[in-house]
Amino acid sequence: MKNKKRKRTERIGVLIKILNDHPNKIFTLNYFCELLGAAKSSISEDIMIAKNMLEDLNLGIIETIPGAAGGVKYLPVISKEETKKFLQDICFKLEDEERVIPGGFIYMTDIIYSPENAEMIGKILATQFINKKIDYVLTMETKGIPIAMMGARSLGVPLVIVRRDNKVTEGSTVSINYVSGSSKRIQTMFLSRRALSRGAKVLIIDDFMKAGGTAKGMTDLVKEFEGEIAGIGVLIATKEPKEKVVEEYVSLLYLENMDLKNKKISIMPNPSLL
Amino acid sequence: MKNKKRKRTERIGVLIKILNDHPNKIFTLNYFCELLGAAKSSISEDIMIAKNMLEDLNLGIIETIPGAAGGVKYLPVISKEETKKFLQDICFKLEDEERVIPGGFIYMTDIIYSPENAEMIGKILATQFINKKIDYVLTMETKGIPIAMMGARSLGVPLVIVRRDNKVTEGSTVSINYVSGSSKRIQTMFLSRRALSRGAKVLIIDDFMKAGGTAKGMTDLVKEFEGEIAGIGVLIATKEPKEKVVEEYVSLLYLENMDLKNKKISIMPNPSLL
Repeated sequence: MKNKKRKRTERIGVLIKILNDHPNKIFTLNYFCELLGAAKSSISEDIMIAKNMLEDLNLGIIETIPGAAGGVKYLPVISKEETKKFLQDICFKLEDEERVIPGGFIYMTDIIYSPENAEMIGKILATQFINKKIDYVLTMETKGIPIAMMGARSLGVPLVIVRRDNKVTEGSTVSINYVSGSSKRIQTMFLSRRALSRGAKVLIIDDFMKAGGTAKGMTDLVKEFEGEIAGIGVLIATKEPKEKVVEEYVSLLYLENMDLKNKKISIMPNPSLL
Repeated sequence: MKNKKRKRTERIGVLIKILNDHPNKIFTLNYFCELLGAAKSSISEDIMIAKNMLEDLNLGIIETIPGAAGGVKYLPVISKEETKKFLQDICFKLEDEERVIPGGFIYMTDIIYSPENAEMIGKILATQFINKKIDYVLTMETKGIPIAMMGARSLGVPLVIVRRDNKVTEGSTVSINYVSGSSKRIQTMFLSRRALSRGAKVLIIDDFMKAGGTAKGMTDLVKEFEGEIAGIGVLIATKEPKEKVVEEYVSLLYLENMDLKNKKISIMPNPSLL
């Protein structure tokens, strides 16, 4: 039974539910007037109450956009306090010596594939680029996909996935050769010609950065589409090498050290985000 | 400023926001009492109001769990009406002749990587298995990951991703040989030994099923972990071959026919879901 008159208690609940389910998407006031059977002035007041309350409890930001194309939208920005708590908790979990894998790697898929963690990582990364007018989030298969998906969701933009192989389901593709930082081998990445529109602003999201070769490859790939890199965000970057092959990036965590003999991993949050 | 006394209008908004952000996760009433500075009786009433309103507007279900381990949780179940509307819309988009790729494939990554679509597909798939006490959602890289992620989010369980190659970052793995339905070639899939706990109930989610070889491979893999398959859900299954190598599965859409010469694709929603 839509369109029946709703009380304020009900209206605010529905308003928050719908805005929360569609981050960064603009809804007109009329949309809520019709759905909730209320006048524009009442909906405006509802929005103010919802806005103040969410900000007060650090649950994100409701923005009103004036003008003909105006309306209201929700941005799931994460406060510094919450970012700190979450990143410290993730560091604690990742530093567990049981996670050390022969060859000097850390087992972390259980953490980054957990929808709750992926959502929080996606929201924290999106928060860093919220004002950059991003058109797409780009990632390279496979491990970065869950956090990139959640980042794209937070920004309300499509996700695009670069492939390691030329897949027939992608149609005709553009390919780039790149040097993977860790293996030093020349590899190829592929992206469907249809995946990006010309001149798009792209945010790269990935789970891990060592020398930055993969991110550099994705940067070159975006240039082939005459696109612009609006930012690079990763979950963990290694402290060494200090100079990456990409110039600017934001990493939520730094892998400081890994002592394979004693199985000691040392990871810390990026201090500039706290 | 947490813990200050909140009015009902505010309380219901926050309640819905928090439940909505954590599908299928039980929150105690005490949690909300403390967060919102209200008595248990008031929070119980808030929950009833929120529950009735969400159900009235087809926005999902709030469940209260009695007893010592009790509390309240939110299930983002999608109504038949909304399922129908969404699936019909997706069919319409997928039937666009521009999507035909040489070799008899359909370009659909723009649709299934869109966070809004992936979320809706994930919620509709989760709705089919909501009472199956799922422990994990399992998918095979790459194209199914976004919808599997959103399915796992809706069920409040971890996502597990099976790999096509043996990756060093996964630690020691279990591998299974399987026959891919489309290529008829023997391939191998790998899953980290740490990825699944023994005896888990697993829901397989994937984007596409032809003969079902990949799903069968994942089923065998789960058996190696002494796990149980609670269900298989896919976005699109081909009408032919009618007999798949897996016994039971739920497909949201059926690919009825593809006329490559005239570039005509015919897809329809699964009638039993509407």
